[in-house]
Amino acid sequence: MKVIKDSVHDHIQVNGVARDLIDTPALQRLRRISQLGTVSLVYPSANHTRFEHSLGVYHLACNALEGLAVEGQRAERVQAAALLHDVGHGPFSHNLEELTYRRTGRYHDDVHDLLADGEVGSVLRDHDLEPGTIADLVAGEGRFGQIVSGELDVDRMDYLVRDAHHTGVPYGTIDHGRLVRELTFVDGELVLGEGNVQSAESLLVARALMNPTVYSHSVARIGKAMLRRAAERLLESTDIDADRLQRMDDSDVIASLRATEATAEFSRRLDHRDLYKRAVWAEMDDVPGGIIEADHRTIREFERDIATTADVDPDCVILDVPSRPSMTESTSRVVVNGEVRRLEQQSPLVGALRAAQYSQWRLGVYTPPEFLESVGRAAVSVLGLDIDGALVTEVRDGLDATLDQFME
Amino acid sequence: MKVIKDSVHDHIQVNGVARDLIDTPALQRLRRISQLGTVSLVYPSANHTRFEHSLGVYHLACNALEGLAVEGQRAERVQAAALLHDVGHGPFSHNLEELTYRRTGRYHDDVHDLLADGEVGSVLRDHDLEPGTIADLVAGEGRFGQIVSGELDVDRMDYLVRDAHHTGVPYGTIDHGRLVRELTFVDGELVLGEGNVQSAESLLVARALMNPTVYSHSVARIGKAMLRRAAERLLESTDIDADRLQRMDDSDVIASLRATEATAEFSRRLDHRDLYKRAVWAEMDDVPGGIIEADHRTIREFERDIATTADVDPDCVILDVPSRPSMTESTSRVVVNGEVRRLEQQSPLVGALRAAQYSQWRLGVYTPPEFLESVGRAAVSVLGLDIDGALVTEVRDGLDATLDQFME
Amino acid sequence: MKVIKDSVHDHIQVNGVARDLIDTPALQRLRRISQLGTVSLVYPSANHTRFEHSLGVYHLACNALEGLAVEGQRAERVQAAALLHDVGHGPFSHNLEELTYRRTGRYHDDVHDLLADGEVGSVLRDHDLEPGTIADLVAGEGRFGQIVSGELDVDRMDYLVRDAHHTGVPYGTIDHGRLVRELTFVDGELVLGEGNVQSAESLLVARALMNPTVYSHSVARIGKAMLRRAAERLLESTDIDADRLQRMDDSDVIASLRATEATAEFSRRLDHRDLYKRAVWAEMDDVPGGIIEADHRTIREFERDIATTADVDPDCVILDVPSRPSMTESTSRVVVNGEVRRLEQQSPLVGALRAAQYSQWRLGVYTPPEFLESVGRAAVSVLGLDIDGALVTEVRDGLDATLDQFME
Amino acid sequence: MKVIKDSVHDHIQVNGVARDLIDTPALQRLRRISQLGTVSLVYPSANHTRFEHSLGVYHLACNALEGLAVEGQRAERVQAAALLHDVGHGPFSHNLEELTYRRTGRYHDDVHDLLADGEVGSVLRDHDLEPGTIADLVAGEGRFGQIVSGELDVDRMDYLVRDAHHTGVPYGTIDHGRLVRELTFVDGELVLGEGNVQSAESLLVARALMNPTVYSHSVARIGKAMLRRAAERLLESTDIDADRLQRMDDSDVIASLRATEATAEFSRRLDHRDLYKRAVWAEMDDVPGGIIEADHRTIREFERDIATTADVDPDCVILDVPSRPSMTESTSRVVVNGEVRRLEQQSPLVGALRAAQYSQWRLGVYTPPEFLESVGRAAVSVLGLDIDGALVTEVRDGLDATLDQFME
Repeated sequence: MKVIKDSVHDHIQVNGVARDLIDTPALQRLRRISQLGTVSLVYPSANHTRFEHSLGVYHLACNALEGLAVEGQRAERVQAAALLHDVGHGPFSHNLEELTYRRTGRYHDDVHDLLADGEVGSVLRDHDLEPGTIADLVAGEGRFGQIVSGELDVDRMDYLVRDAHHTGVPYGTIDHGRLVRELTFVDGELVLGEGNVQSAESLLVARALMNPTVYSHSVARIGKAMLRRAAERLLESTDIDADRLQRMDDSDVIASLRATEATAEFSRRLDHRDLYKRAVWAEMDDVPGGIIEADHRTIREFERDIATTADVDPDCVILDVPSRPSMTESTSRVVVNGEVRRLEQQSPLVGALRAAQYSQWRLGVYTPPEFLESVGRAAVSVLGLDIDGALVTEVRDGLDATLDQFME
Repeated sequence: MKVIKDSVHDHIQVNGVARDLIDTPALQRLRRISQLGTVSLVYPSANHTRFEHSLGVYHLACNALEGLAVEGQRAERVQAAALLHDVGHGPFSHNLEELTYRRTGRYHDDVHDLLADGEVGSVLRDHDLEPGTIADLVAGEGRFGQIVSGELDVDRMDYLVRDAHHTGVPYGTIDHGRLVRELTFVDGELVLGEGNVQSAESLLVARALMNPTVYSHSVARIGKAMLRRAAERLLESTDIDADRLQRMDDSDVIASLRATEATAEFSRRLDHRDLYKRAVWAEMDDVPGGIIEADHRTIREFERDIATTADVDPDCVILDVPSRPSMTESTSRVVVNGEVRRLEQQSPLVGALRAAQYSQWRLGVYTPPEFLESVGRAAVSVLGLDIDGALVTEVRDGLDATLDQFME
Repeated sequence: MKVIKDSVHDHIQVNGVARDLIDTPALQRLRRISQLGTVSLVYPSANHTRFEHSLGVYHLACNALEGLAVEGQRAERVQAAALLHDVGHGPFSHNLEELTYRRTGRYHDDVHDLLADGEVGSVLRDHDLEPGTIADLVAGEGRFGQIVSGELDVDRMDYLVRDAHHTGVPYGTIDHGRLVRELTFVDGELVLGEGNVQSAESLLVARALMNPTVYSHSVARIGKAMLRRAAERLLESTDIDADRLQRMDDSDVIASLRATEATAEFSRRLDHRDLYKRAVWAEMDDVPGGIIEADHRTIREFERDIATTADVDPDCVILDVPSRPSMTESTSRVVVNGEVRRLEQQSPLVGALRAAQYSQWRLGVYTPPEFLESVGRAAVSVLGLDIDGALVTEVRDGLDATLDQFME
Repeated sequence: MKVIKDSVHDHIQVNGVARDLIDTPALQRLRRISQLGTVSLVYPSANHTRFEHSLGVYHLACNALEGLAVEGQRAERVQAAALLHDVGHGPFSHNLEELTYRRTGRYHDDVHDLLADGEVGSVLRDHDLEPGTIADLVAGEGRFGQIVSGELDVDRMDYLVRDAHHTGVPYGTIDHGRLVRELTFVDGELVLGEGNVQSAESLLVARALMNPTVYSHSVARIGKAMLRRAAERLLESTDIDADRLQRMDDSDVIASLRATEATAEFSRRLDHRDLYKRAVWAEMDDVPGGIIEADHRTIREFERDIATTADVDPDCVILDVPSRPSMTESTSRVVVNGEVRRLEQQSPLVGALRAAQYSQWRLGVYTPPEFLESVGRAAVSVLGLDIDGALVTEVRDGLDATLDQFME
């Protein structure tokens, strides 16, 4: 048995297949993938990695399996999946995921190839585990896949607590000990046992409060948008393709961006935290229909049009259109008076938090500070936003003074 | 300067009038008033006192005043009020407050007499502070009274964090450092500055989650109802009157209950945690109109009727009807786009949490375990509840297995 | 299974005999015995009780037993002993222990009678456990008794962490998770496995730092000395005897002191924190041979002589002579290079900390502030201390300004 | 005013010159310099950076200055120095410091050039601060330099708490709030005021316990030795010189090691955590005189001789000889009975901890696992160690099972 000291769960005991998997290059690589990417531009302590998170998810999975009285190889499969659930992540975790997905068709939880090959595949087979089965569990398939990836998965429980610990933002402090212990199966569905409506709500609330404060903080979004644009230029101007980018770690990307002429300026700006600012920061109601659903090509065209109208270099305009808010937790299941109910049936909070997410949604147009006004005006005109240019700047200035209370 | 070590705020610096007030008997008495009364029957670590809470409120008030740039005697008045805000509490804090209020007409924040008299009065006058003015601040009056008692007061900020720390329930971990710093005055109203909708919501959410989990946990409510009944018997059968009861501390009450024949059985039950159980636990919809608004005399009559019907001793039936849920935080004010808004105008969470509070409301009828069935049936009939006796027991059993996951 | 929420260990699972023992009056009584007695006069948050500590010790014992692969009834015996290890404590824990010991001959860990009688005895026998065997374990006898009471017992591990949590003093934060897991048996002796010299040292250091800062803080010692004197008067002037005193809880004692004329003044002083001050605070080298070893009767005579010399009431003089420092941890055993060694053989820290304890030892003479000078002079003369009266006051004043940085 | 959220100190307020300094490339670079280098190979959560540490040191410096009543430009100078104190660090902090020092003659606290040049220089001069004066403070010169770098500096106070927080090892939890507040000047010397012997000891003890558990953990040392050897090969085989290496960040070094043929194998091993093992791990008494004092050239020769004797590639042998233990804290000053004393005069702990450090000192010889025996035997013979080859392996095996309880 190996014992690993973790800043969140204290001691994590690692046994069996997990012990061998930890030493594989695929897992060790996660030491160099930051958990929250550009969020560290807002919260300087948020330098934790996918490696420690993976250990934490493995730890909570072990606890959940113990509570569910799942043992033997069935448990070992879930433990392997929990430990491996993030090996598919590219550099800077979710930051570049859309970019590589467009070119590879693979999200980070599509790991069939990764698990079948190399040392991971050997270790799994040495322990009589079928890589394909483990990859299915990582994708959330089957009864036990829900523990690893689902509305009540241990992934979420670990990251909320871990991200709170490392950012210093207290909103993610759910009662994970209780949540894990109260998991149970009813008709093949993973549910929280009787008396846990509150526990389920707290999970939902934690994410709803962490979202705007941490995950979608405007400065983190600007950093991410700049990093994504830089990575796009890297793919266009070097022989690095999306598959290779996807297998890099954070250091590889940083080094490549520095070494490539086409991305050197973005690299310098990210290194020096000399970021673009918001020329537009528009609520959903002010954005004409269709823009939210626009595909990547259309977004690129909008950007070029805005740049042309404002008479600035195309790389000085980034249009950042988040997709519609979703709320996985709303369908998590809880036993109420002996009956399994979806949380959204039971809790008035679900609707309220969904409405809050919609009201927090923002379309952003980012540009260097010197072009704020011209790019702002051009974006309003090109996108047909329901606000005039002056207002944009005015509102934005108000927001700059407030939303960015931490490290603008 | 005096420095006091606190388990929540680490070091608390105590200066000026506060330093002298701490040594008064009125404040030292708070060392023997538990903050959460019978909640410690559910959460055994919750033995913190009104004394440490008062120090914490004083500490946060100092920080808020610093942020608001309030200095000199004006600041000293608020500091004195913050430190003294709970000297009016009777034994076991809120547990016996309704009982003494019915006889004295005074709630714990009515402290004009207490501050004018004795050592507290002398200390205040020695520092050129008018006791009446301080008592007004404690009652939340005036511009600066809002800091001590209002929708955004430092009282709430301290108790949420402190109660979370001592119970071990993580839901109260608000970002009090930020809340205190973001307080500002607009047109004489205490508001949270721009960009703090989330912060205000987190305060609301914290209380909404702490309420059912801690403050209104069914076992804490049963303990409180038994303690209240015992104290009522004490007033009836001894020469202790409500005023004297109100000035006692927890030890006085415990000793008096033990020493009085009429209360010895309640005392034994509370000491041994041999508590009544729920014969009825009914949702608001199942309770006929009028019962929630019933006055104390009517409630006592219901209890006697139920006891007669069930043929048990009157002290074996306790009817516990909480008042309608309220939500002070809903009117707290936040600046949004330069405009002061009430949180309920801004946040969809307010309505949702209010609905949640209503759905969590429960009428309880408590009795020794051996009378559960007979008292349950009698209560349904006497109160005209919209459920039949069998169901009561069935539902209650379900709840016993779940709601009381911590120390039934 | 019952789950209890604890502010230190989070969730504590309670099973089997422990579940039934918790509901006995003997254990519920510990809810009203403060863990640290008069230490709360210095650290206002230190209101934790022997009840929560007992749960914590039970929890760590379960973990240790799991690590040692001890199961079945053998484990259940140790678990019962861990939970019950403090039921013999009198009110205010150690504060009055010497007083009752002089009259009853029993320390708190002598619990043979307590375990054989009443509900505890019934519960134990219902689970086929012999009360005498459990009492032996509580006394630290036998191989498994070392887990409950010995150099490396879980009692110490819980109280260091718990006292640190509740006082806010960080020095007790040992790595209890690791300590518990590294316990092992070698030739029937409980030892720490290879590679744990540091862990053992940290336990030693934690206690060495907590001692002067918390457990023997001068204000806590003064409060304790006054409480002990008051309790002595109580035994002399009422029909309460030492056995009855020993079975009281804190509230009983507080109420009795208030109700008894001979102790009312001490009671008032303790309630209002209107404490005696140090007239003498002398290092070991300044105290003539024999005084440290003096028995109770001699100490009382010294006090009377000092009072006579200073011409004050005998109750205005308290002579507080701690016994010579001891250091149980020095004999704890650790495996080093495959060989079991006593920590004092291995670690130079043991000698250094022992020397530190000696240098921190102080004889105190306490008296109301108005008699400081006369009593100080009288004490120096009567005890033959190697300092002159002026110096006493001078040194004491220096110390007052410094040692008591927390709430003099 | 800017407010930054920190996982250790919660909110850090940044004003004046500090606010402008934060945005300079020299400070932003510290975001990419890990605080503890290869310690993260042992403690996976230890990914914190010099940037957050610098903010923490600035924060504690502000608190100390407030306590010392130092204001205005004098305070601003110390604040600037505190924030800038680590800009001289090379990649992986101390890991490569000896290597670059041998070639540049500069340690990380020699920052005169760095502060005079570029944006940092401009910002300082804009605030009427002389870069040379700030650099002197960073080097610990003058009365106020002691706050930044000295026996009682705030640097140490931040890193002990921060490293404990991020590794999860509890030994560094000193009472920094108290330490900072108790700092005072006596005759121009920074000392701890009366009554703080314990506080000073706790600082000493914290470092003494963190040292072997964290900073000098054998696996961290092996990782560091391999990284240092790789960096040395990098300097030899590329046009990168020591000055350029010194100004790189962690990502630069990782990328360069990967891209260079001569270092690719070391890079692969570090990336995959496929580390060398200990062929020898010898106590100070077993090492012949002269070896500890040997210069770099001699060490290299020993390594070559061992490789030749064992018939392995020279890069397969690393000889790691730490210098003699030092203990800066031993000379920290505390006021005792009105007199300033050095801690080592006052506290028996100083000598004991120094002895402990000597007993923990180890010379290591590292090699790939397959050469453990041959290299072990060769090293014993070449170095003239007072142990025979068999013993080396035997002892080492014992240690492997124990010292490396965390992630060998």
